[in-house]
Amino acid sequence: MEMANMHPAEGRTTRRCFLGHTVTAAASLAAASALSASGGCQSAASSSPRTTRRSLGHGDVVLFQGDSITDAGRDRGQESKPNHVRALGDGYAFLIAAQLLAERPDAGLKVYNRGISGHKVFQLAERWDKDCLTLKPNLVSILIGVNDIWHTLNGNYQGTVDIYERAYRALLERTRRELPDVKLVICEPFVLRCGAVDDKWFPEFDRYRAAAQRVAQDFHTVFVPFQSMFDDAVQQAPPAYWAADGVHPTMAGAGRMAAAWLEVVAGAKA
Amino acid sequence: MEMANMHPAEGRTTRRCFLGHTVTAAASLAAASALSASGGCQSAASSSPRTTRRSLGHGDVVLFQGDSITDAGRDRGQESKPNHVRALGDGYAFLIAAQLLAERPDAGLKVYNRGISGHKVFQLAERWDKDCLTLKPNLVSILIGVNDIWHTLNGNYQGTVDIYERAYRALLERTRRELPDVKLVICEPFVLRCGAVDDKWFPEFDRYRAAAQRVAQDFHTVFVPFQSMFDDAVQQAPPAYWAADGVHPTMAGAGRMAAAWLEVVAGAKA
Repeated sequence: MEMANMHPAEGRTTRRCFLGHTVTAAASLAAASALSASGGCQSAASSSPRTTRRSLGHGDVVLFQGDSITDAGRDRGQESKPNHVRALGDGYAFLIAAQLLAERPDAGLKVYNRGISGHKVFQLAERWDKDCLTLKPNLVSILIGVNDIWHTLNGNYQGTVDIYERAYRALLERTRRELPDVKLVICEPFVLRCGAVDDKWFPEFDRYRAAAQRVAQDFHTVFVPFQSMFDDAVQQAPPAYWAADGVHPTMAGAGRMAAAWLEVVAGAKA
Repeated sequence: MEMANMHPAEGRTTRRCFLGHTVTAAASLAAASALSASGGCQSAASSSPRTTRRSLGHGDVVLFQGDSITDAGRDRGQESKPNHVRALGDGYAFLIAAQLLAERPDAGLKVYNRGISGHKVFQLAERWDKDCLTLKPNLVSILIGVNDIWHTLNGNYQGTVDIYERAYRALLERTRRELPDVKLVICEPFVLRCGAVDDKWFPEFDRYRAAAQRVAQDFHTVFVPFQSMFDDAVQQAPPAYWAADGVHPTMAGAGRMAAAWLEVVAGAKA
């Protein structure tokens, strides 16, 4: 854990709620729903200095990164085209993009999805130049971690939570070094207890979640608490309603993720 | 126009706002946006008797019908599966479904998309048994008409606005006869003035729009005013931002459509 004592965000402002009031309408969806239990604009670093809200500027680039949950069947042949419906897949990234583009016609946003099915955090690092840095994103939203544990459970990977956390920190450090003004959003890895997800995932999975939150806290990024959102959701419908195999969201699950992301990132209630 | 004097909705209650308060959160998205200019819960038959709001019941079937705008690249091989992400395409129907399923986990809704690219209203009629009546939908949302005029402009069809209106009325009459309790939503055909849409579309296109609204009024259906919504939208961004070819919505356009549909059908402000 040689990077654990670094203070990468020292001297930087905490970036939270940077979409500003102009997406309040979108966020009100979540605000008025059960999702509001998770609170308004949420940062993992509640004790860190707050900044003035910053709206995304004209022509800003928004990048979704992650594994199959982000990938969601996107057409990789179209990935160089911003705001291309096929290039965004049919998961939470698409739902968020459609809502942002509908509500922010003034912003000229360019939204990309570069999630790749099966990937773990070290694989994001391997393709980070091509699939992040060269795009010069203004906002990068990352959801990664479920394969870092899943592939150890099925014997296809020898990783540990420490390896996950170190690689995640190195990735963010590199991102901030290359893109000093980038806004970072870390999404909490989540599972539903059904399908492929059984008792053998726990409590180890909770350690991966905690690591992601720790990284978000230390880097003062926005943190989207998907697991606690889904923990609330299973009070309303069975786990399989939200993710049939316990890992990949249904449309309903993706809908809740989009609402939670918009709520947290847009920060309507902050 | 032998059917123009029929009173198909006589003795029936006007069905409006039937999703009830439980989707208020979703509708608030539109309510707080520029879309609110189009008003709250809207019926084409403002002078007709109002009913008590009815929520969709448990296990209710919601069907989206139309042409390519509804189709939106759906996987027809999966069309028999309700709530299947690939079966719903990547247009407004998918966005609405994701939001309904996310916000109404209690409702057990089954959502289908049976739009087919290129279709005109008479082609809906040809496949109505298979693609509507056998599904026994509780709610049918129809968006049809742009090809009824477009295919006359390119010389591939000899239709007229009267043919369109008569066929539309016959379709609804048949639907109400076979499914007496069905809730009907008629969506206004729309175009943006860009791409394939030039001056030769007008004023004829306005007559098709008026016909759809007249049908909605006479059948006391809910009416979703997509054209006026887009007329507002082009005050905020150029037509091509909402539909690059003037006919098929971008993600931003589909996002606005979903918000408008939810606003009107859910009727948060009625």
